[in-house]
Amino acid sequence: MAGGVGSRFWPFSRNDRPKQFLDFFGTGRSLLQLTFDRFSQVVPVKNILVVTNHIYKDLILEQLPEISPDQVLLEPHRRNTAPCVAYAVSRIKALTDKANIIVAPSDHLIVKEGAFLDTLREGLEFIERNNVLLTLGIQPSRPETGYGYIQVAEGDGALRKVKTFTEKPNAELAQVFFETGEFYWNSGIFLWNLQAIDEAYRTLLPEMAHKFEEGRGKWNTPDEQKFVDEMYPACQNISIDYGIMEKASNVYVLCSDFGWTDLGTWGSLYEMSEKDEQRNVTLKCQAVYYDSENNVVALPEGKLVVVQGLDDYIVAESDNVLLICKKSDEQRIRQFVNDVNVMFEGEYN
Amino acid sequence: MAGGVGSRFWPFSRNDRPKQFLDFFGTGRSLLQLTFDRFSQVVPVKNILVVTNHIYKDLILEQLPEISPDQVLLEPHRRNTAPCVAYAVSRIKALTDKANIIVAPSDHLIVKEGAFLDTLREGLEFIERNNVLLTLGIQPSRPETGYGYIQVAEGDGALRKVKTFTEKPNAELAQVFFETGEFYWNSGIFLWNLQAIDEAYRTLLPEMAHKFEEGRGKWNTPDEQKFVDEMYPACQNISIDYGIMEKASNVYVLCSDFGWTDLGTWGSLYEMSEKDEQRNVTLKCQAVYYDSENNVVALPEGKLVVVQGLDDYIVAESDNVLLICKKSDEQRIRQFVNDVNVMFEGEYN
Repeated sequence: MAGGVGSRFWPFSRNDRPKQFLDFFGTGRSLLQLTFDRFSQVVPVKNILVVTNHIYKDLILEQLPEISPDQVLLEPHRRNTAPCVAYAVSRIKALTDKANIIVAPSDHLIVKEGAFLDTLREGLEFIERNNVLLTLGIQPSRPETGYGYIQVAEGDGALRKVKTFTEKPNAELAQVFFETGEFYWNSGIFLWNLQAIDEAYRTLLPEMAHKFEEGRGKWNTPDEQKFVDEMYPACQNISIDYGIMEKASNVYVLCSDFGWTDLGTWGSLYEMSEKDEQRNVTLKCQAVYYDSENNVVALPEGKLVVVQGLDDYIVAESDNVLLICKKSDEQRIRQFVNDVNVMFEGEYN
Repeated sequence: MAGGVGSRFWPFSRNDRPKQFLDFFGTGRSLLQLTFDRFSQVVPVKNILVVTNHIYKDLILEQLPEISPDQVLLEPHRRNTAPCVAYAVSRIKALTDKANIIVAPSDHLIVKEGAFLDTLREGLEFIERNNVLLTLGIQPSRPETGYGYIQVAEGDGALRKVKTFTEKPNAELAQVFFETGEFYWNSGIFLWNLQAIDEAYRTLLPEMAHKFEEGRGKWNTPDEQKFVDEMYPACQNISIDYGIMEKASNVYVLCSDFGWTDLGTWGSLYEMSEKDEQRNVTLKCQAVYYDSENNVVALPEGKLVVVQGLDDYIVAESDNVLLICKKSDEQRIRQFVNDVNVMFEGEYN
């Protein structure tokens, strides 16, 4: 899934180049490319489908020259993750009646690749044998309020039945979740076989399932895009978490720990990153700090910044836009982007 | 005079491009060029001499294509303003025995050009008829502690005898100076005729005068540079203010008001500049402020900056270096530059 347009990392992320296309850490690979690198160790490259907004088609093909244009599924509108997954599942179903499927966002960061690949293999083995919906749960390392949580049923081993899903909790609740040991972060990475997910859509999102079934005979043909373009506007705008995972009765979680973050905010990027003695995080650039603590500074490579007298700030520059903002006020970035778009007519979008 | 290497405007000013060569306000002309533009309205261009450090020769000729290389006087070392003026005076004396001379820094900002030119003309008329040393005094607009002050003798009119010179006063004293109305800022712009300044050097800096007199026959010849290069290291490192103006008995001040600032610091640049309702100063770039007051923000043209939660800061970027620093701590910039030079071996000098 590579269709997000998140503005929370503005000015790094822009409409024409959202987060998944960015190389946050100066590694030379974007988050999308790193995601591809991980999955291509488990999944044959020809079996990888990228679902994205039509405006990112060229960017996808540029960043992933290993895949062919027919592996890129183009959504004409944003309709959240349930239609996105339904689209890919329809494609697969037209080719085969037996498949193991992994669904994953393309803009997450995973730092323990070996553990991740082991987890995937364990999960694949499980869903190959069982008609279940499996999600990867992450052992929490802190009482994070920015993630959804999964409560697992009692039991042994890493594979557990899901008891409840909880949206982002407040700080108090997050602390309780963290301490009980029964809760895992919801990574948004799912595994299931074709039959299980097909049944789930028919049962839980029957209207959407029906809409996609009307495309029978068109998938993987020149008529597919036209069909999708026409039916998408009428698709329900709903996430797969809300539409399927939270309602299904056969949901399992594979409890894992592979250094995961959804990099949803500057704050989570800060948390994930290596800090100096004054707990400043410097990304890509050179930074020299005086009387400054707890900042995250991300400027283009080759830049030097001297920071004096700042505590708990974001200093981020990309593509001719500099943002200086209190870390604790980062939820206002969306407002800044909107304001700036109005003021400068989209020039810095 | 265009030989300064000030680091107080770092990262705008660098060793290879100090303040006088910069276009602070995005007008398309550097401070040096603006100075040239002003004086060329009063002085024939062929009579303009630029004294600078030898490393800036090419930069001067590039920025001032109107002058020829023999109008650029190259100092081999930094020796403050007294040798600098003595060098130019020696050149002039070798050509003529009668001249009216204006000495001026090339890195000041003057915003009321008409008033300035009127002042120059009035001063020139006075020094043509009188063997005096005339300095332009600026009517103070605030109790500034960053400038030297001139106390004037009682009298009428703009031309007054000087009573005392005072170095940068503390805040209390500056307030007294400001309130009495007897004190003017010392602009460092001087007018005199050749005879007056020649006599002053012979009387007050006889050793220096003697050293330059040894160059007789070499000025304006191919031997000049070699002579200067050899004698300069032995020249006393002293300012013309301290060496001559504060000691001479025939010093006058022309009390003026032409919107002058020496732009010595970010603070003075801030004071001089137009402010928005939150008293933020934005130079060259586009800036959007939230919860931010009293800042000076100077980024390259075409850049956008969103500033949130900053009060009384300098945010300045030039040539791949960004500085964020409390305005009240700007005297530390010199230290930052030194540190950075050590850390990065002069890369960001």
